[in-house]
Parts: sequence; C-alpha cells; structure tokens
Amino acid sequence: MTYRALDSYSVLDYLRATPALDAVLDLSAPLHAREVGDGNLNLVFIVEAATGQSLVVKQALPYLRVAGESWPLTRERMRFETQALIKHNELAPGLAPQVYHFDDDMSLVVMENLAGLEVMRKPLVARKRFPKFADHISTFLARTLFFTSDFYLTGVEKKELQAKFINPHLCKIQEDFVFTNPFMESPENHWNALLNAEVEAVRQNSALKLALAEMKAYYMTHAEALIHSDLHTGSIMANAESTKVIDPEFAFFGPMGFDVGAVLENLVLNYLSHFAHTPDVATRREYQAYLLDLVREIWTQFAAKFDALWVEHNCGELMPAKYWAYPGGEEAFAEFRRRTLARILQEVAGFGGAKMLRRMMGIVSVWDITSITDLEQRAVAERLAIRIGSRWVTERHAIASVDDLLGIVREETA
Amino acid sequence: MTYRALDSYSVLDYLRATPALDAVLDLSAPLHAREVGDGNLNLVFIVEAATGQSLVVKQALPYLRVAGESWPLTRERMRFETQALIKHNELAPGLAPQVYHFDDDMSLVVMENLAGLEVMRKPLVARKRFPKFADHISTFLARTLFFTSDFYLTGVEKKELQAKFINPHLCKIQEDFVFTNPFMESPENHWNALLNAEVEAVRQNSALKLALAEMKAYYMTHAEALIHSDLHTGSIMANAESTKVIDPEFAFFGPMGFDVGAVLENLVLNYLSHFAHTPDVATRREYQAYLLDLVREIWTQFAAKFDALWVEHNCGELMPAKYWAYPGGEEAFAEFRRRTLARILQEVAGFGGAKMLRRMMGIVSVWDITSITDLEQRAVAERLAIRIGSRWVTERHAIASVDDLLGIVREETA
Repeated sequence: MTYRALDSYSVLDYLRATPALDAVLDLSAPLHAREVGDGNLNLVFIVEAATGQSLVVKQALPYLRVAGESWPLTRERMRFETQALIKHNELAPGLAPQVYHFDDDMSLVVMENLAGLEVMRKPLVARKRFPKFADHISTFLARTLFFTSDFYLTGVEKKELQAKFINPHLCKIQEDFVFTNPFMESPENHWNALLNAEVEAVRQNSALKLALAEMKAYYMTHAEALIHSDLHTGSIMANAESTKVIDPEFAFFGPMGFDVGAVLENLVLNYLSHFAHTPDVATRREYQAYLLDLVREIWTQFAAKFDALWVEHNCGELMPAKYWAYPGGEEAFAEFRRRTLARILQEVAGFGGAKMLRRMMGIVSVWDITSITDLEQRAVAERLAIRIGSRWVTERHAIASVDDLLGIVREETA
Repeated sequence: MTYRALDSYSVLDYLRATPALDAVLDLSAPLHAREVGDGNLNLVFIVEAATGQSLVVKQALPYLRVAGESWPLTRERMRFETQALIKHNELAPGLAPQVYHFDDDMSLVVMENLAGLEVMRKPLVARKRFPKFADHISTFLARTLFFTSDFYLTGVEKKELQAKFINPHLCKIQEDFVFTNPFMESPENHWNALLNAEVEAVRQNSALKLALAEMKAYYMTHAEALIHSDLHTGSIMANAESTKVIDPEFAFFGPMGFDVGAVLENLVLNYLSHFAHTPDVATRREYQAYLLDLVREIWTQFAAKFDALWVEHNCGELMPAKYWAYPGGEEAFAEFRRRTLARILQEVAGFGGAKMLRRMMGIVSVWDITSITDLEQRAVAERLAIRIGSRWVTERHAIASVDDLLGIVREETA
C-alpha cells in the first residue's frame, strides 16, 4: 500500500481492512475516531468502539521538515518507535503501551489507548503525586537496560539487536541539540533575555565545555544498552496506579546513564519551577522534598534492581559464573557490579547536567519553567538550573552516591 | 555463481573469466598459480604472469569448523576482510594490500601480491630492523582510527559505516579468547607446565580479574573507530622500505587502544623472547633497546599524527570549530585532545596487558616465545610477560606517558 495520510473517517476504513485488530476491538461494531495529535509531526487518532474498547492510531506526517531528508527521517522514526515499544513491552510488561499493528508503508502504528493516564509534566507542576512512579520507572530502567546490555545478552545477540537500532538521523538531533548547539552561537537557540550573562558565561566556561565534549564523545560511542534516549517527563504517562513510557523514537544503543539522567534531571527542573509556581513556602517545601525523595528513590531502586537482575541471571554473559568461581571471586564480582553502578551514576550526573543546561539555552525548553510568566521569577529558576547543571557535569567524577547529586541541588537552592 | 573451492588450475580459469582483472595482470599471457596457504582456513594462491605481473587470490574454505555455524562465519569473514582492506587503502594508501576484486558467492578476494615482504614475527626474533616501521604503523593507526571516528566523520556517516562492520561472530572469538577463557578453566587453554603456579595466581587475582572484566565491557561497548582488532606482528608484513597491514577480518567499531595496544604488546613479547633467543648480552641489550625505542616511537608518532589530523581538519566533527570559538577556546580544544590521547594510552595499557596475558595461558601463544625450546628458558620470558601484562592492566589508570608503560617493562626485567 502506498502512503496516504488518514483522517478520522479513513482511519476507520483502514482498521476495518486490518482483520488482525479484531482481537483488540470489535471491528464490526460502530467505531468512532477523533484526532488528538498536535498536527505537526504525527496524526494521533483515538478510536473507540460502541463496546467500550479503544485503541490509538499514530501516523507520521510526511512534512516534518519542508525540505531535504524529512520524509525518510519520518518513516524510520515510526519503525524505531515501534521496534522499541515492542522490546519495552517484552522486557518491562505493562510499562509501555502495547503495539497491536505496524504498517511501514503507511508509517503507522496501532497501539494501546492510555485512557486515564496523563503526561507527567503538567501534573508535576500542579503538585500531583504518583505513589507508584519510583517503583515503576526504576523497574522500567533496570529491566530495559540490563536485558539489552552485554551483561545479559550474548555478544552475538546484542550485536544483532544493535544492528536493528542503528538510528543515525534521530541520534543526530540529540547529538546536536543536547551537546553542541546550545553552547555556541546557533540560530535556533533561545533563552530568557535576563540570562544573557549566564548564557555567555556557559559558552566561555572551558572546564564545562571540555566536559560536554567528553560526554558527547561518550554518548556517540558507548553502545551499552538499548536506551530510550528521550526519557523526560513529557515521555512518561502516569496516574496513581500505572506508568507508561511513550515516544521511544530516538532509541538506539547508547550509555545507560543518559536515560536515568533524563528522568532525574527533569524532576530537578520541576523542583526548581516550584520557586515560582508554589509561592506558599510550606506547601512548596513539602512538594520539593517529595521530588528530591523521588530522585533518591528512583536511583536507589534502579541500582538495587539492576544489581539483583545481574546476580539472579547467574552472573550474566559478560563474565560467566565460572570466571568468578575461585576463592574471593564472589566478592570480586560484587565489586565489579558496585563499580559499574558507580560509573553509571557519574554518567547520570554528566548527562543529566548537560540536558539541564540545554533546556535553558537551546532549541527546546521545558514547560515546567516556560510556564512561569514573570520573566524575573523564571530567571531565578533558570539561574539555579544553570548552576546545578554545570556542577553535575563538571563535578561528575566526584559523585559517589545519589546524595552527592542531591547535595548539589540542596547547596544551590539553600 | 555457486561456491566451489579452487585449485591451482581452476583459479586461472576463474581469473580469465574476470575481465576487470586485465588491468592488473595480462590475462592473455601465460599464467602460473601456486597454493601457499596453510590449508586450514583459506586457500591462498600466488598467480604470476609471464610478464612479471602477479596477484594473490585468497579463498575461504568451507570447513573452518566441522559442525555448526562455520560456513556463514567463513563467508562473512571474507566480506569483513575485503571491506576493511578497501577502507584501509583509502585512508592509509600503500599501508595495506590493494583489493582488485571481491566475489561474495565464491568467498574470494583478489589482492596485491606482497612480494619481497615478510610477516614481521620471525625476522624480529632474528633481530632484523625495520627502519620505516614506526613511521608507517603510526601513520596507519592514526589515519585509520582518526578518519573512522566521531572526531572526523559526521554522526550519520559514522553510523552508516558502523552498520557495515557489525561483525558479531568474529568479535565473539576475541571476546572469549582475549578476556574470558584464558582466565578460568577452559579446555582449549594451554601453557608451559612450569607456569602452573603463575596461571593459578592470575586466575585468583581479584584486582586483575575485575580490571579484565572492565576492559571486556569496554571492548564490547566502546564503538570509537573502525579497528583492525587483531593487529599483532603476525598481521603485519614488512621489509626495509614497505609495511602492509593484512588479515583485518576481525574489523569492527571498537576502542582505538585495542589496536595500538596490540602492536606495542607484541613488540614487548618479542623483547622478552630475546632473553632466550639472544644469549650474547651485548647483542641482546642492543636489540632490546631498539624494540623499546620502537614502542616509544610508535606511540609518540601515533599521538602526534592523530593530534595533527584533528587540528588540520578544522577541529573535526565532534565539536566544530565554532564550539571552541571563544577566548580560551583554543586551549580548551588542545586540552580535549590531550585528555583523549591520555585516555587512549591508558586503554593501550589495559588492552595490551590483557592480550599479553592471554598469549601465556589461552588458546593462542606467540611464536616468538613458543619457539624457545628449553622450557625453563621459555618460562623466564613467560613469567616476565605475566608480571608486565598484569601490571599494565591493573596500573593502567596511573599510566600518564609511554615512559610509564616502558617503565614497567624495565622494572620487571632489570
């Protein structure tokens, strides 16, 4: 079938012509579709049957960019997203939307409708709490990262999976817009004009720029696990019971710390936004304490779960149980795990800090902070983000525990 | 065409049926072929024309291993070798045999005949000198590694090239036999029985085994550049004027230090072999000094050439010139290069050390040392190799210059 963009009528014809979907929703029943996407990159239809069953159809639009290589980028984007969603469901069941159907020619995926869940960014600004979030996201991170790494897979299995996730065009977006462009003159950068001095200082901070260059080289070369690679709080939908990680189109084999860092960094940015969003001091402090507890819990549970998976799977594949089978070998294996997680935490600091900085002066900001309408108030949060982000990056080698990471947040906001 | 193994007659028919080769050698002239391979893995024919022109035909045999996945391994081996040879010629002209023709169905490559060059291992035992070797091999390393890295290529170009060198089965051989099996009980391991105590001590040395696990994880994940991945002195042919790197079938995107480490480590093993091979002390010391000078020269020239390429290509792609265009940026860029090369040197120590150790107690030894017929004499060299290799691995983070690396060799052999 050749590509054609669907509308809320033709999407129903498309579904009815796809009998495999009958298992998900009764195709003979009356169906209703409404388009809920933002219309820029993708069409998103929620389709409901009279039976109460529902699903989502997500179709890439061919005009992501006006000129150039936009269409191939869009098409491969849907393939990477679908492949990653399927893998995430396999490895962390229930923590990503289920995929029901993929159509490469139509650049289209049919997936679970996440009714009753909301994208986390706005409710976090509204001081909502997600009691299962730390447990769920740490499980998602531990399982998707461990089971796609060389610690678990054989070398052959890992490389065969990696070959399916060579994702150069999507990677380029992160490479340019996380590590490079925000820190030099580039037309797409924008920032609060009150930060001119701070932005200039970042661009001229050699220790920081050196560290960012090192982090970029590491991001581009360290094919450690299948990472989501865009795991901010806008890529997570949740409610009190459930958590789903969405939009994994950037997925590729990269460093684990990039995903963990993205989650923690976005919670810190939300923490900073409450200096403006929550003027009542007691209310603000209570919610900010909740957010920092979340950061600690997510790291602590991630590390514990990752470590437990490694032990549970008979030492994994990287070095088999036999390699550690000597007097003292058990302790050496424990020390190897400890060092690996300590290294990942330092990378969390480096990547989290880089991402925090780029949100202040690059192409994409975060709604948590841009929704602060008073520019002076907004600048207070942004200056703190720049200080914390810079220190996470430049002091990453001194980070030995999640409390060191939180200590920098506390020191700068004391 | 379906595969059939050639012989010294049918190879001539094959060549005559491949008109493109007429540019290399006059196909209408009388031709003569002789098989010079060892007959285990590959057929190797040297084909000479009455005109004096010549070429080499290398064909993989289908019986690399008796059972299992041997044939796919063999077939892909020839493809990776050919792709790498072509890339090496493009990036380091004259330093690898030229490829004239590749036939995937026949698992066959036609390439330059390296008449007048010899594989380096034996002449190094015979104390031969190669006056251009340090210059040539440092050029080969600097150019093949720099030009296939993210420092030079765009992210998209690098990942597209990387996709052609996903080489899981060949990688597995190095992963198992360099980092894992030699350091635990495994049936293929063999060693000089006089080393029983030393081998057991290595297997129970937790600091060493931890470090080897870290180096293996790094080898499997750090996709830094297209590396040869088997660059010992048996993969280099040379004479007084010329140097050619051969047999790159293990090529994949891995850490640069693995290739540089392989060259230096093999020179150190050759150095150690002269304690037995060269009983005359003055003669021995003179040649050993030459070998250590080679090690220093190769590293120093490699680092200088790599650095010069990076500067020359306008800062490269990783971070463009614009990123460093601020007061102090030039110094920061210089420091980034310095730190990168310092990191690579530590990886040279780690990988070189691991490879030195595996040659003493794994599946493959080196002829330099196994050709010492007196087992007591041989054990002297082997014990030194185990001590030096262990220290290169465990002390790698303290290596700040090539003299630190050589210092360990000197201390252990003083």
